[in-house]
Amino acid sequence: MSTIGFIGLGIMGGPMAANLVAAGHTVLGYDTRQEAAERLVSAGGAYAGSVAAAAAADVVITMLPDSPQVEQVVLGPDGVLEHAKPGLLLVDMSTIRPDTSVAIAAAARERGVRALDAPVSGGERGAIDGVLSIMVGGDPEAFEAARPVFEVLGATIVHVGPSGAGQTVKAANQLVVGGTYALVAEAIVLLEASGVDPGPALDVLAGGLAGSRILELKRKSMVARDFTPGFRIDLHHKDMGIALAAAREAGVALPMTGLTAQLIAAARANGYGPLDHSVLLQVLENLSGKAAS
Amino acid sequence: MSTIGFIGLGIMGGPMAANLVAAGHTVLGYDTRQEAAERLVSAGGAYAGSVAAAAAADVVITMLPDSPQVEQVVLGPDGVLEHAKPGLLLVDMSTIRPDTSVAIAAAARERGVRALDAPVSGGERGAIDGVLSIMVGGDPEAFEAARPVFEVLGATIVHVGPSGAGQTVKAANQLVVGGTYALVAEAIVLLEASGVDPGPALDVLAGGLAGSRILELKRKSMVARDFTPGFRIDLHHKDMGIALAAAREAGVALPMTGLTAQLIAAARANGYGPLDHSVLLQVLENLSGKAAS
Repeated sequence: MSTIGFIGLGIMGGPMAANLVAAGHTVLGYDTRQEAAERLVSAGGAYAGSVAAAAAADVVITMLPDSPQVEQVVLGPDGVLEHAKPGLLLVDMSTIRPDTSVAIAAAARERGVRALDAPVSGGERGAIDGVLSIMVGGDPEAFEAARPVFEVLGATIVHVGPSGAGQTVKAANQLVVGGTYALVAEAIVLLEASGVDPGPALDVLAGGLAGSRILELKRKSMVARDFTPGFRIDLHHKDMGIALAAAREAGVALPMTGLTAQLIAAARANGYGPLDHSVLLQVLENLSGKAAS
Repeated sequence: MSTIGFIGLGIMGGPMAANLVAAGHTVLGYDTRQEAAERLVSAGGAYAGSVAAAAAADVVITMLPDSPQVEQVVLGPDGVLEHAKPGLLLVDMSTIRPDTSVAIAAAARERGVRALDAPVSGGERGAIDGVLSIMVGGDPEAFEAARPVFEVLGATIVHVGPSGAGQTVKAANQLVVGGTYALVAEAIVLLEASGVDPGPALDVLAGGLAGSRILELKRKSMVARDFTPGFRIDLHHKDMGIALAAAREAGVALPMTGLTAQLIAAARANGYGPLDHSVLLQVLENLSGKAAS
């Protein structure tokens, strides 16, 4: 069992840290919000009063909103690298830009710290149940060292390549998910505007080559216009920014991804930021002047 | 067992007619190509020398390339309706425009003919194995009358609404399928251009919310650039035209569908018409000046 510093105890990080406590690890948690820290303590963890205190552990996990927060916490003054023991295993599980993960890994290497980028999918439910999918970039040795920790948090744990690769795979995941929601939404708009009941129609689509996990899990709630999150548009908007930044960095044009990002931006502009990403259906109905059912 | 006139004995219609013969039906087949007619005869069917002769059956199935051919064969001079017995069950299994199906059903009704639109998905393999998905529009009574025939041809048989609804559902299916190929292609382009091995990465995507039947069946052949059809770009190009015509008819804007249609048009413009629709990967690589692997 390791001593694990866990920085960022939000919707995802909170239950992940609690699962590590339950698995027998000593968890030193840090979050700027007092109530998040209190939740960890009541789950049996310890509160680290600062990033520096959390960084004194054998393993440090960061689970933060976006690239600037990770840069600040890891590279900034009084940050993780400044206070790290040599040999520290630094696992960033936030979803951030791949080039930021590469820069962090390079800075970590200079300090004798092994860094992994290990973004997740599976959402709050997956975090609570410890069944996240974890996409890991970095040295294979560091990946093996971190595996016992990953096995507490996730069900699917895959080493996908060098530093940044985990983030690239997450970006690819998010562009496919966002685009699939938009396609299913357009199918529903076409069916309903043509006077076809989308229920049995989407059953047929779900059973054939058009089938997807999204059709399987979400077609009923979409047709019912239940847009309770789930995964919020605000977060997917951030992730589409990362996907497009990754494409720019890689020097490729991704037109479907660009359009998907704009539809998600439209969702946010219409005030749907706190709703589930399946609310793309509402955006596409608005586009054609259809009222919500 | 019925006497079935079967008009259009091509890649799909040929094996479908043969399955009806094998199930004990008397099949009067018609096709303008001599070799297609001969294949049916060697499978135990009878060759009808004209549309008129095939139209003398109890059930007439049409399986033709596109809307104009169906209009010609059904509504044209010496066509099915001109020679139909009252009470004929006319089942168009071609993929055509929903408004054409509506017009044919109206003309059929005036002649005492019951018409169904019943496009299929599942491809040549599904036709040969008799496991097609069949999406049926038209009167429920006519659907029930045709069910024994459908059960020979398909595994998933769903009545989705009034005349034209079968075609609308097929259009919705094709827009989701085409768009999903484009999204998976963009994911592969991003991964490869970022130096990430797409193999394990796509395994992760296939196991999560990004998962789809296309990722499941086609990710390996796409990464290997094996674009053997499968379902040809030429046909999907036709189907995207139908989807956009259906959207225009319904008065809705479908931006993802529009972009998907243009990418498929680009595939065709580049000479990929005879290749599998997964060749959208090559279109998206060309867009960024990447050479084929």
